[in-house]
Amino acid sequence: MKKNNSKVSIAVIRRLPRYYRHLTELRQQGTVRISSSALGKAMGLTASQIRQDLFCFGGFGQQGYGYNVEKLREEIGDILGINRGHAAVVLGVGNLGHALIQNFKFGNNGVRVEAAFDIDDDVIGTSVGNIPVYSIDELDDYLIQHRVDIGVITVPRSVAPLMAERLVHGGVRGIWNFANVELKLEDAQDVVVENVHFADSLLTLSYMISKPADDNGEEE
Amino acid sequence: MKKNNSKVSIAVIRRLPRYYRHLTELRQQGTVRISSSALGKAMGLTASQIRQDLFCFGGFGQQGYGYNVEKLREEIGDILGINRGHAAVVLGVGNLGHALIQNFKFGNNGVRVEAAFDIDDDVIGTSVGNIPVYSIDELDDYLIQHRVDIGVITVPRSVAPLMAERLVHGGVRGIWNFANVELKLEDAQDVVVENVHFADSLLTLSYMISKPADDNGEEE
Repeated sequence: MKKNNSKVSIAVIRRLPRYYRHLTELRQQGTVRISSSALGKAMGLTASQIRQDLFCFGGFGQQGYGYNVEKLREEIGDILGINRGHAAVVLGVGNLGHALIQNFKFGNNGVRVEAAFDIDDDVIGTSVGNIPVYSIDELDDYLIQHRVDIGVITVPRSVAPLMAERLVHGGVRGIWNFANVELKLEDAQDVVVENVHFADSLLTLSYMISKPADDNGEEE
Repeated sequence: MKKNNSKVSIAVIRRLPRYYRHLTELRQQGTVRISSSALGKAMGLTASQIRQDLFCFGGFGQQGYGYNVEKLREEIGDILGINRGHAAVVLGVGNLGHALIQNFKFGNNGVRVEAAFDIDDDVIGTSVGNIPVYSIDELDDYLIQHRVDIGVITVPRSVAPLMAERLVHGGVRGIWNFANVELKLEDAQDVVVENVHFADSLLTLSYMISKPADDNGEEE
């Protein structure tokens, strides 16, 4: 497929997972085909926005005919790298690490969690949701012996930068960071950090319920 | 303060918490004053973007002089509603509910968690991080008796829509939704839903580490 994505804006990239999620739901509901206006309505975007976004990735739609849900979902999944089979490790098996390993469906997103690491003797040597928990002391050796694409950081923020450094030295290509601290990886330009900042989300909600009722932000 | 925010784009609003977070870190480091270019560098934005964003909310800066970190942080905190003292309840005290109540600093974001609700007899009647856990059967009465601004949903996705309805009927104004399901509150246009979709974040990371190395998305 010809892709027009040599320079795609971050805003479009960030919408792709939303497309994927909505298309997955549509497929589960048995929808075979959808127009850009119906898809736009479900996602809070205009039909023209939808057409523009998908054009960046090579079209997909047919004028007056809409999109094939299954096919569009697969193509977007491909673009997102869902079929690459990324291997991940989780650093920190506290409440959040537990929650992610046990409840978050990594597999649906093309990611296999293969090991977890912690400093707590009570969890080292156990399994959480079939994932073995090792001592953090074993991390560097583990990264030498296994190809790991993604490191998930759920350790306290004070130790997060050190953990990130060890992941980078161990050759991971992406860090999914829940530690609520900006990780500055200045000697690792090729490692991507994706931060999950719960506070940003809560503060946005706080803003939305605090502002005068007639003052609705415009959708971008 | 004069605000020019009658119609502020969602993109700007979503950056405000990031400003707040960076300014909090700058303050902790003892920085008193910062130029728009230095602030931009820390946040991955251009100086002109920074000036534009902050102009939407009434200016703050002085030409050639930069921003007062403390003052700008306070003003943005005010805009975000941090001083409103929003009261919240958490529905679902599983791994994720635990993680949020025990580890997430609601207070730093101007939100007080006052109660949690679950269906599990093992946690009902206990406290998690000083927050009492009640039976979900008591939710409706609780909402009649207490002003609750925000409901945090960490229940399984199958029951999330029902929980959202009960929160809306109970008068909450915002829902912070971790259930990974779109909540359609069609008879509650004035209730704001903020979704935390872990999958969207992981898929963005997956995309970034899957694409060819020379194909960097343009920052918006």
